[in-house]
Amino acid sequence: MNRKPMFITIEGGEGSGKTTMVGRLAAYFQNHSIPYLITREPGGIEIAEKIRSLILDPSHTEMDARTEALLYAAARRQHLVEKVEPALANGLTVLCDRFVDSSLVYQGLGRGIGMEEVWRLNQFAIEDRMPDLTLLLDLDPETGLSRIAANEEREYNRLDMESLEFHRKVREGYRQVAQRDPERIRIIDASRPPALVEKELIRALESTVLKGF
Amino acid sequence: MNRKPMFITIEGGEGSGKTTMVGRLAAYFQNHSIPYLITREPGGIEIAEKIRSLILDPSHTEMDARTEALLYAAARRQHLVEKVEPALANGLTVLCDRFVDSSLVYQGLGRGIGMEEVWRLNQFAIEDRMPDLTLLLDLDPETGLSRIAANEEREYNRLDMESLEFHRKVREGYRQVAQRDPERIRIIDASRPPALVEKELIRALESTVLKGF
Repeated sequence: MNRKPMFITIEGGEGSGKTTMVGRLAAYFQNHSIPYLITREPGGIEIAEKIRSLILDPSHTEMDARTEALLYAAARRQHLVEKVEPALANGLTVLCDRFVDSSLVYQGLGRGIGMEEVWRLNQFAIEDRMPDLTLLLDLDPETGLSRIAANEEREYNRLDMESLEFHRKVREGYRQVAQRDPERIRIIDASRPPALVEKELIRALESTVLKGF
Repeated sequence: MNRKPMFITIEGGEGSGKTTMVGRLAAYFQNHSIPYLITREPGGIEIAEKIRSLILDPSHTEMDARTEALLYAAARRQHLVEKVEPALANGLTVLCDRFVDSSLVYQGLGRGIGMEEVWRLNQFAIEDRMPDLTLLLDLDPETGLSRIAANEEREYNRLDMESLEFHRKVREGYRQVAQRDPERIRIIDASRPPALVEKELIRALESTVLKGF
């Protein structure tokens, strides 16, 4: 297997199984002796963690949609500069739980700012650094939200409280984004048993490596 | 005097006397029975105050320049939506201590991101809301910084610790911004005694009102 470090992102709505699949991919990297880093956007970066806690504070119900988009972009920028770029430079394959597509979908479409405007904002934050591969876990939002409700250990936050209608928009938004960039974004049917989802993720990963991404 | 509410901003480097002149303008509005609001960007808006404290925390020396620009834009957005727009809608003239020009200068030129990039970022944050008048207090940075050093009551923050070279870039940046938009931005010589500076500010204000801004 080619050891050129890849930048991979994993995306999907609430309850789509991202956390489980991140663990499966970590096991795959270990089994194949691929040096890797697993992260998600605040990623233990002090400034980004503080920004994220501002966004997710349930008392901030009055936060404007554009303020939220700017804060996500700020946390993304700092995490990219402090964690993702150094890891790639050191030869690690990076798997990031959510990235720019989350903002296009959650802020651009979900909050009604518009995907184009949010895309331009994110270009300021990430400059030229786009993922080599994005794994999109596609799932009906009713199923996703019922998975969350069944899992008592998972922390409830402000986004979970949004209406089902919002989560439907999110799913539709992800599909639109994937249509625009089918080379980078692979849609994975996340309604199937985890072993099958994992198999498809690894197939997408290996085919991307084979074509030299 | 025309009572149509104006959106006025005051800009200038460290120690240029903005705080003093804001007080003088407040007295002018009172004496002329002009309903007004004086504010500066976090402006008591909870989210914006928290964002500002992140930016100014002296322990965050590792903050990336683009992260900083995104955070200023986020604080600006929330302050605009929660405080400035409602005040203007209620007929108050708003005087804001620093606004978009500060970002063009401090982040765009001072931090080297580029004014055009920072301008596009700020368009996301403010949409179409530009000031009707911007009062720029122009002062040699050596004089400004020595004024600060002489004032023991003023809190020292991360920006004050920047080099003199940075503050020279700030002054030059403000002059460039003013050249591009001479109708909106009035350059005021802030090296003169406060009474003379005040007189010139009020002349700029009255001439803007007379031409219907």
